[in-house]
Amino acid sequence: MSSFRIGLAQVNCTVGDLEGNTARILHYIERARAMQVDLLCFPEMVITGYPPEDLLLKPEFITGNLEKLDVIVRHSAAIALVVGFVDSRDGLYNAAAVAYDGELCGIYHKTCLPNYGVFDENRYFQPGTKAPIFVINGVSIGVSICQDIWYPTGPASRQASAGAEVIVNISASPYHAGKRDLRERMLAGRASEDTVILAYVNLVGGQDELVFDGGSMLLDERGEAIARAKQFEEDLLVADLDIASQEVHTRVWSLESGVPLPDSRLFPARSAEIHDRVGEIYAALVLGTRDYIHKNGFYRVLVGLSGGVDSSLVAAIAVDALGPENVIGVSMPSRYSSEGSRTDARLLSENLGIEMRVIPIEQAMDGYLSMLAGSFAGTQEDIAEENLQARIRGNILMALSNKFGWLVLTTGNKSEIACGYCTLYGDMAGGFAVIKDVPKTLVYQLAGHKNSSAAREIIPRRVIEKEPSAELRPGQRDVDSLPPYEVLDPVLEAYVEEDKSLDQIVALGFDRKLVQRVISLVDGSEFKRRQSPPGIKITPRAFGKDRRLPITNRYRSS
Amino acid sequence: MSSFRIGLAQVNCTVGDLEGNTARILHYIERARAMQVDLLCFPEMVITGYPPEDLLLKPEFITGNLEKLDVIVRHSAAIALVVGFVDSRDGLYNAAAVAYDGELCGIYHKTCLPNYGVFDENRYFQPGTKAPIFVINGVSIGVSICQDIWYPTGPASRQASAGAEVIVNISASPYHAGKRDLRERMLAGRASEDTVILAYVNLVGGQDELVFDGGSMLLDERGEAIARAKQFEEDLLVADLDIASQEVHTRVWSLESGVPLPDSRLFPARSAEIHDRVGEIYAALVLGTRDYIHKNGFYRVLVGLSGGVDSSLVAAIAVDALGPENVIGVSMPSRYSSEGSRTDARLLSENLGIEMRVIPIEQAMDGYLSMLAGSFAGTQEDIAEENLQARIRGNILMALSNKFGWLVLTTGNKSEIACGYCTLYGDMAGGFAVIKDVPKTLVYQLAGHKNSSAAREIIPRRVIEKEPSAELRPGQRDVDSLPPYEVLDPVLEAYVEEDKSLDQIVALGFDRKLVQRVISLVDGSEFKRRQSPPGIKITPRAFGKDRRLPITNRYRSS
Repeated sequence: MSSFRIGLAQVNCTVGDLEGNTARILHYIERARAMQVDLLCFPEMVITGYPPEDLLLKPEFITGNLEKLDVIVRHSAAIALVVGFVDSRDGLYNAAAVAYDGELCGIYHKTCLPNYGVFDENRYFQPGTKAPIFVINGVSIGVSICQDIWYPTGPASRQASAGAEVIVNISASPYHAGKRDLRERMLAGRASEDTVILAYVNLVGGQDELVFDGGSMLLDERGEAIARAKQFEEDLLVADLDIASQEVHTRVWSLESGVPLPDSRLFPARSAEIHDRVGEIYAALVLGTRDYIHKNGFYRVLVGLSGGVDSSLVAAIAVDALGPENVIGVSMPSRYSSEGSRTDARLLSENLGIEMRVIPIEQAMDGYLSMLAGSFAGTQEDIAEENLQARIRGNILMALSNKFGWLVLTTGNKSEIACGYCTLYGDMAGGFAVIKDVPKTLVYQLAGHKNSSAAREIIPRRVIEKEPSAELRPGQRDVDSLPPYEVLDPVLEAYVEEDKSLDQIVALGFDRKLVQRVISLVDGSEFKRRQSPPGIKITPRAFGKDRRLPITNRYRSS
Repeated sequence: MSSFRIGLAQVNCTVGDLEGNTARILHYIERARAMQVDLLCFPEMVITGYPPEDLLLKPEFITGNLEKLDVIVRHSAAIALVVGFVDSRDGLYNAAAVAYDGELCGIYHKTCLPNYGVFDENRYFQPGTKAPIFVINGVSIGVSICQDIWYPTGPASRQASAGAEVIVNISASPYHAGKRDLRERMLAGRASEDTVILAYVNLVGGQDELVFDGGSMLLDERGEAIARAKQFEEDLLVADLDIASQEVHTRVWSLESGVPLPDSRLFPARSAEIHDRVGEIYAALVLGTRDYIHKNGFYRVLVGLSGGVDSSLVAAIAVDALGPENVIGVSMPSRYSSEGSRTDARLLSENLGIEMRVIPIEQAMDGYLSMLAGSFAGTQEDIAEENLQARIRGNILMALSNKFGWLVLTTGNKSEIACGYCTLYGDMAGGFAVIKDVPKTLVYQLAGHKNSSAAREIIPRRVIEKEPSAELRPGQRDVDSLPPYEVLDPVLEAYVEEDKSLDQIVALGFDRKLVQRVISLVDGSEFKRRQSPPGIKITPRAFGKDRRLPITNRYRSS
């Protein structure tokens, strides 16, 4: 039996942190070497972080990444490595270096460059054309990068037909709900079509609006996943591949187990737990929030607590991301705030164990109304006065942020942001929009998930059950301005995520006038979204780099 | 003599306005037909407007554009047309249709797709591979699109060597300072290298952060520009080309002249006036502002007038764009506003002939300070209190905007926005950031230009001469926080526009500590820029689609 020990180092690196990322890579090399790993694989562009965007246009950034690659190669004594980096010989390439025993053995250039959705790889890179095979300890290895493996006729297939026994795919594949399953099915197809062992290592961690979910895996040549790394956490998967018999034995273990490596090389199978759909999304939101805050040098956050389900969910996510001691709730009641809202906000903060401050907004409101009395004379109360309330709250949160260095989390959901049912510089004011890509109906599911996984009522039941209201005028209810969320959300999904036309959405069974109104709200609020803080992508199309629409746009769907 | 009459219709279309753009195209066809034009050329993607961005992902949008092309083709009786559109046969193409006498004669697909700077054409389009020649009234015409002509070995050269007598290039080429000259030099090179007559028609008009400056032109086979259309205005250039003698006679006239077409076909040469550098930039800012406001359905704007040069310049641009009756100045003095500032704001508004409202901000400030007294107890006055003042001003402008439907223009310049010397939701609050891409030193030049072109003091001399201050605390001066602008601006240009490293900038003769501080300010304020309104690109690299940097970014130049 020819046994080959492979390691997949699913690391959480930070864009631009060449020094820190390299230190993390060296750390994993040391641990893998101690485990007698033959080949250790790191994700796509692990040295630079992904996506570095226009940092790639800075020549010194490219040089810096090459210098770090040299350092890493020098640390490959007695271990083979596959490491993602940016190559700059005769053009810029998204590349994988193969190193062994202190030598750079070869370089692979990514062939299929994604330039859709959140991706802009044609902006920076030239496509590679070669599909080399590397022989490591007598095993033929084909190296490919991310998108390369998504095409049935891509470089991995060429490598497999040319005799590769193992295909390594190093990825930086951003999360959306269900992406892990999609990936596993795709990889299973590729492994079984090509009759090849597939080692897939994905980045983990949050980067602005993206979350990389990890979930690295090994599949045998029948397409069976025989080992899965954790989702949303750093992990090191190690497995012995029985190459001679063309089988992957399920001898897999993780670094975290801490169990010293037995000589027998026989280990129990290991597969990290797979989340259910809502739990997976919740975990993505927690990781995305934690990494945005920490990687940007913040520790504590502020959340305006209205007593509603959106801000309650955001506070719960923040507590899971940062700990209750790092989350400060601020309740900012006005004359229109119900007693229930105040009580609910207080109850939530008690359940979460966070500090809550109460700052009523009436004094500033009176000041504004008196200052604007001349200009507003003879007009009716309208959106101007409503927005003033939201903006006072935004200002209070920002004043606390400026004074104490705490980052403000905004609490708007995707349904609101899609329709412009939110106030620029008001409830949209803050550094990070945690649930920006979460439709309201999913907000309720996530709140339910939080309570059931805590096995107690963290988010008060009343908060989940009461009718949604912005409480900016007496008796206001969301349904006065928007269709009920059970109707709105599928219409938004069809229009925003699937680019369906008015006619096509009506054909799904929705009222034409209602759909027209929704489309008009979405189209008319592009200017607001352009000024919103980034938030975590969890759907196939988020508001952000995924969806690039002009503000000046006279097109209306028919 | 074989004379061939060509027309270049430099139109101002609106993204997404398939109906309106088509009506405009048909209007120009009628006028050109009346002038016995043989071939009338419209800019790149004139039917959809440029850039339509992700509207291109909507199948119904593509279908709509094809239906409009059919309408246009049917209107080509007795005239040949070149019209930019989006083709969707076997993929999506940035395309030019050639039509004559009611028939679609052929289609050209853009070969060189720009995917750098503000461009994302690989996101949508496949590149064409063919370089056909069309024979119109016995003249051989090569059609190319924008970027195609920028490469010496592109399709136009292939067409010229294959016998094309005239190369038509239809463009949507966005403006930056000096781009017109750059374009003319490039086109002159291409015409003389290929010994071919070159007809270049460019879009005109503002689209979000872009201004298309028109400046269409005809060059003879020696590379001499023999006719130039206006910059920053719609125009129709018509000329008779003497093909047999391989010469372009300078018989050129414009639609605007209103002179009926003489039978002799002999006209005086015509070349629109070329602006000087600062005048050109001023005109770009006026057009960009006017089109953003009007194309988004607004008529009146609000400008907060501090008495400083930035807001004075913005108000002057707004008046030139929209008329004094559509610009409302708002002076919002605080306890720190000097008497001079108030007087200067009043004087400016008198010079411009605009309404000015005065709304002191003290009452709201008192409200906030009292509301925050508990939280702020024991702290020193700092940026938190300064930002509150800026945010109260932002709120007042937005309240007036919400109440009356007027759009707020922000007044921050590029130097401030680069360094983060601006307040999110404060002076950054508004719909359009007119001078976002204008460095402070250029702000002064533009203010001087305004006064000299008006031949009187519009922007008060005191405003131009006094020391810059944000007036957010007693005795505050910009130089307390930033290097002098004469030093800062070239450092910013080197870092932001040219991607120079710290070492490279120091090598230009700047102090290392100063450069380090500037770089650190720029890198640390990416989060602010991400939430800023769009503004007009006038440099080779503006803050916007041009420059895509991660917020989460630990890279620091060395």
